Amino acid sequence: MTELRKDPIIGRWVIIAKERGRRPSDFLTLVEEKKEQFSPFAPGNENMTPPEIYAIRPENTPPNTPGWTLRVVPNKYPALRVEGELNPRGEGIYDMMNGIGAHEVIIETPDPEKKLEELELPAIHNVVRTYKLRIEDLKRDIRLKYILVFKNHGHLAGATLKHAHSQLIATPVVPKRVVEEMTGSKTYYKLKERCIYCDIIRQELKDNIRVAFEEEHFIAIEPFAARVPFETWILPKKHMSHFETSNDTELHHLALTLKTVLKKLNRALQSPPYNFVIHTSPIQEERKSYYHWHIEIMPKLTNVAGFEWGSGFFINPTPPEDAAQFLREISV
Amino acid sequence: MTELRKDPIIGRWVIIAKERGRRPSDFLTLVEEKKEQFSPFAPGNENMTPPEIYAIRPENTPPNTPGWTLRVVPNKYPALRVEGELNPRGEGIYDMMNGIGAHEVIIETPDPEKKLEELELPAIHNVVRTYKLRIEDLKRDIRLKYILVFKNHGHLAGATLKHAHSQLIATPVVPKRVVEEMTGSKTYYKLKERCIYCDIIRQELKDNIRVAFEEEHFIAIEPFAARVPFETWILPKKHMSHFETSNDTELHHLALTLKTVLKKLNRALQSPPYNFVIHTSPIQEERKSYYHWHIEIMPKLTNVAGFEWGSGFFINPTPPEDAAQFLREISV
Repeated sequence: MTELRKDPIIGRWVIIAKERGRRPSDFLTLVEEKKEQFSPFAPGNENMTPPEIYAIRPENTPPNTPGWTLRVVPNKYPALRVEGELNPRGEGIYDMMNGIGAHEVIIETPDPEKKLEELELPAIHNVVRTYKLRIEDLKRDIRLKYILVFKNHGHLAGATLKHAHSQLIATPVVPKRVVEEMTGSKTYYKLKERCIYCDIIRQELKDNIRVAFEEEHFIAIEPFAARVPFETWILPKKHMSHFETSNDTELHHLALTLKTVLKKLNRALQSPPYNFVIHTSPIQEERKSYYHWHIEIMPKLTNVAGFEWGSGFFINPTPPEDAAQFLREISV
Repeated sequence: MTELRKDPIIGRWVIIAKERGRRPSDFLTLVEEKKEQFSPFAPGNENMTPPEIYAIRPENTPPNTPGWTLRVVPNKYPALRVEGELNPRGEGIYDMMNGIGAHEVIIETPDPEKKLEELELPAIHNVVRTYKLRIEDLKRDIRLKYILVFKNHGHLAGATLKHAHSQLIATPVVPKRVVEEMTGSKTYYKLKERCIYCDIIRQELKDNIRVAFEEEHFIAIEPFAARVPFETWILPKKHMSHFETSNDTELHHLALTLKTVLKKLNRALQSPPYNFVIHTSPIQEERKSYYHWHIEIMPKLTNVAGFEWGSGFFINPTPPEDAAQFLREISV
């Protein structure tokens, strides 16, 4: 059982994965990239993952056998588990609870070599539709308060396996960063009676200097206060507080935008490692006028993050206006 | 001139270093470590840095010549500069100001090969005393609101030069992370009329399971909600809100504690890359009952930070209790 622990000063929750505990010597090779010969996610190796939760596969194939085009499995080394009681408790001034939640892996393709953005559009559409389906399923467990959907691509961005996959962590608390976005956008709404993200989209479309890509339903911008070079946000143009309320047309356009933007970043930066995170509203809360779901993509280009995430203070050597211009000019 | 820009949603300030602007192709080699043959910080190369601001050197030696044991110089590629006007302004919904401040480099030793923790105790004492002297000097400029003292050690922790050095960035705004710590500890003080850090020290000394090192004036702990394996905090046992109010005896003990803890981390983790950041009160504010300065050390052992600093959600595979036990048992 892992443990959720709260920093008593600033209220940040951390998962302490006791079961995954390592001796100090285990860390020494972690910064080196493994030479992978073998993918436990490849067809034929279905028995190397926990049994599948969901798959897109021909009707005549049984679960956990080859034939699938997309597979969702529990993480073999889960940060959080569904089984058990939350048991929130204190220890002197400290607060903690059991590591209840879910940790799933979305295997995006059977091909161990293909990247997400190299897949055909319908396959990427399936990936984002699967995010929605998994959120809809998990939100029925009312102990769960938030679902964090993210992708680590490349060793330097924290991916331990090369085979294309994203992850989902459902938590019994709302992460601090989400609370901050909710609070900030609510404050703006109280003042202006407008969604701040809608205002950002309006201003960016008017100024047209930080727009990296635009299509019918989505816009991709380099944010005004970008933390890292080529930080890119994808936002639906229509106001929508919860990712999972996207309809299938919107998900098709999201897939198109994601594919285009990732391919542009690959062309501009020679296929960098990257992370993306879906920022959306807490799952048990009703639709909000003040919050607007979006995806934040962070290419991993520099090593300066260590100090910067420790201090919350970022120095970005590339103005987002320059990055946007590079990305706009790249055809993919 | 760089620009300070504020994220309109959560209020984070970012420095956009336009002058340092790079083409996308410039990033491609950044993740590879440079094979350094040459240190611009070494004695004899004083003309390769901007003229020194401060140095510890024999009385008969002129500035910017060899003979020094410690040197402070402006960063050659400063994120912020002293010259100019702040000129805070808006651009639609966005807020920004000119990059006014200071960015200095503390060259900790003339020896290009020695690490900070390998220096003799009096030399480390000089380093921390220099932090205090530079803060005392810079705080006379009332445009400056905060001074961030930090060290990046090792390429993977963001150091671009191997020669031992720390840095100081003086900012015209208080970084968000500092505001959060001030707000959190103030809320606790209002409730309890006690400093939360003093309470943490009391509980850690009593429990004695997360203490990594203790001496007369300082304690080093693995924090309860550690974000990364072997995250270590050094705190003065006596309540003190501002680092720069430390007297020379306290700075001697800080040097001893820093040397001991860094050597223990080196022994436990085979000399990992690391960052440390001094967390202290805003320089223009009076002494506070609720805030307690300290140093946070983050060894850079895993590559997962990308996603985690993007989402604010951390998974730590090493319980701080285990890390503390390893560190306590190492003799240095």
